[in-house]
Amino acid sequence: MATVGVDLGGTKVLVAAVHDGKVTDSTKRPTPTGGPQAVVAAIAELVESVGGAKRVGVGAPGQVRHHEGVVVAAPNLEGWDRDVPLAELVSAALGGDVKVKVDNDVNVAVLGEHRHGAAKGVNDVLGVWVGTGVGGGLILDSELRRGPTGMTGEIGHMTVRDGGRRCGCGKFGHIESYAGRGCLEAEARRLSAAGSETALVELAGGARMKSSVFAKALDRGDAVATGLIDEAVEALGAGLASAVNLVDVDLIVIGGGLGDRLGASFVGRVEQATRSRLWAGSTVRVVPAALGDDAGVIGAASLF
Amino acid sequence: MATVGVDLGGTKVLVAAVHDGKVTDSTKRPTPTGGPQAVVAAIAELVESVGGAKRVGVGAPGQVRHHEGVVVAAPNLEGWDRDVPLAELVSAALGGDVKVKVDNDVNVAVLGEHRHGAAKGVNDVLGVWVGTGVGGGLILDSELRRGPTGMTGEIGHMTVRDGGRRCGCGKFGHIESYAGRGCLEAEARRLSAAGSETALVELAGGARMKSSVFAKALDRGDAVATGLIDEAVEALGAGLASAVNLVDVDLIVIGGGLGDRLGASFVGRVEQATRSRLWAGSTVRVVPAALGDDAGVIGAASLF
Repeated sequence: MATVGVDLGGTKVLVAAVHDGKVTDSTKRPTPTGGPQAVVAAIAELVESVGGAKRVGVGAPGQVRHHEGVVVAAPNLEGWDRDVPLAELVSAALGGDVKVKVDNDVNVAVLGEHRHGAAKGVNDVLGVWVGTGVGGGLILDSELRRGPTGMTGEIGHMTVRDGGRRCGCGKFGHIESYAGRGCLEAEARRLSAAGSETALVELAGGARMKSSVFAKALDRGDAVATGLIDEAVEALGAGLASAVNLVDVDLIVIGGGLGDRLGASFVGRVEQATRSRLWAGSTVRVVPAALGDDAGVIGAASLF
Repeated sequence: MATVGVDLGGTKVLVAAVHDGKVTDSTKRPTPTGGPQAVVAAIAELVESVGGAKRVGVGAPGQVRHHEGVVVAAPNLEGWDRDVPLAELVSAALGGDVKVKVDNDVNVAVLGEHRHGAAKGVNDVLGVWVGTGVGGGLILDSELRRGPTGMTGEIGHMTVRDGGRRCGCGKFGHIESYAGRGCLEAEARRLSAAGSETALVELAGGARMKSSVFAKALDRGDAVATGLIDEAVEALGAGLASAVNLVDVDLIVIGGGLGDRLGASFVGRVEQATRSRLWAGSTVRVVPAALGDDAGVIGAASLF
C-alpha cells in the first residue's frame, strides 16, 4: 500500500498516492468550510479513493507543532480558530490503524524538492515559496529544520529595507513587501489609483491579480509590472544573500505560484541579484522548483 | 591535565588552562609577526607555560575548515597568505601526542557562551559579536553549525537597508555598516569633516576610535554618538528579527568589544528593537555575553 500525501490548502485539498517520490494516483476537491471535522472527513474519503494507506503525510497552512501533529489556530482555514490535533483526527477517521504526520505546507513542499526534486542530494538548502505571501523552509544537514516554535524558514518576513513598504503582516520593508503577490497587487492598484496606466489592472479588473496577470503584463513590457518585478528581484536578492551569510546553504530553490509562473528567467535574475551581494567566491546556486503543484503531496509523503 | 584553550587574535594570543568551563591559569603575548611558524612556536610555548595539555582547542580569525583543522588564508594575521594546517602544526610542536581542534574565533566564543556562559542550557542560540566588525555564530539543536563553507553565522553581512551605508566588506546596507566599530568610526569622521561637532573625534584624536570612546561620548550626551548608536540599535534589531524569522532561535547573546563596553542598556535597547519587528507572541530574548574576554579560551577548550 502506498504512502499517501495530503496537501491541505485554503481553497483545495489535494490527495495523492505516492510511490518512490512519484504520484501514482491523485484526486482533489474544494476545501470544505465548517471547520476541522468536515475537512478531516474529506481527507479520509479522498485517501480511501486513492486506495487507502497505512501512512498519511499532511501539509497544512500556518504554524504546526510537528511532533504532536497539531495545527495551531490556522488563519487560512475557515473555522479553525483553535489548535487542531489533525494527526490524531485523520488517523481515527481512517480506522485508527494509520500513522499520520503533519507539517507546515511550505516545509513539506521544500522537503519534497529535497527528497525528489530540484534539491535532491544537496545537504543544505533554502526553499523560498513566492506566492500570495513569501514562505520558506530550511534543510540543514539534509534534515528539515523545525526550530523551537515550528516557525523556521519565515524568510518572507526578513527585513531588506528597514522602514520600507508595508508587508502583509503589518510590519515594514520585508521581502514579502516587495515580492509577495498580495503586496505586489496592493502596490499596483495604489500606483494605478495615483494615475499610472498599467496592464495589470486592465487584465485583472476587479478580480484577484493572479500570477498569470503579472506574467502577461511583463510580456507586454508594461512599465509598472516591470518596475515592480525589478524591485521584487532586488528584494529577494538582498534577502537570500542575507540568508546565505547567516546559515550557509549550497542551494536555494524558488517555488510557489508566482515563482513557478514567472519561471526560469525570473529565477535566473534572482540568482544574479543574490550573488552580486555575496563574496566573489560564493558558489551558491538559485534554481526553480521541479515538482510544480505536486511538491506538496510528494513532500507530505516524504514525512515518512 | 587540563584542556587548554587558545584565543589567537590579530594583536594577541591568549592561552588558558580550563577546567569545567573555568580558567585556572592563563597567559598571553602579542601575536608574533612573520607567519605561521612563529605563531605556532608561541602557542606551543604558552601551552607549556600553563602546564601543558593533552587536548588543545584554538579559535582563529577568519575562515576555518574545522574538520581538517585548517585556517584558510587569514587576512587578519600577518604572513598567513595561504591555507595553514594549524591543528597539525600545533600538535607537532607539542610533541605529536596532543589532540588539537581549530575553529573560527567568533564560533568558538559563542560556543563558550553556550557551554558555560549566558546561553547555557538553551538549544537554539544566535551569538552576535559586535566589535570592529560584526560577527556571529549559530548554535542549532545545541550544536555549533558550521555549514558547507564554514562561513555560517556571518550576521554582520546581512542586509537591513539594501543600497544603504557602505560596509567594511565593500557592499552596502549591512548590519556591520551601522553597528561595526570600524564603520561607526568612518561615519563619525565623515560627519566631523562635514562640520558636525562631536566628542568622538575630540576623544579619539588621530588614534583608533575605541569602544570606550563611544561609551564616553554617549555618557556626555554627544549628539553624533547618540545618533550613530541609535542607528546601530535599529540595524541590529532589523537583522536579529530577520535571523529569528529565518532560523528560529530562543536566545540571542551579544558580545564583542563594543557590545561588552556598551553593556546591558545597549543590549536591552537591541532586544526592544528586535521584538518590535517580530510577531507579538515572540518569546525571543536578547542578553549580554557573560564570559567577557575569557569567552574565546573557554570556548576553544569546549571544542572537545
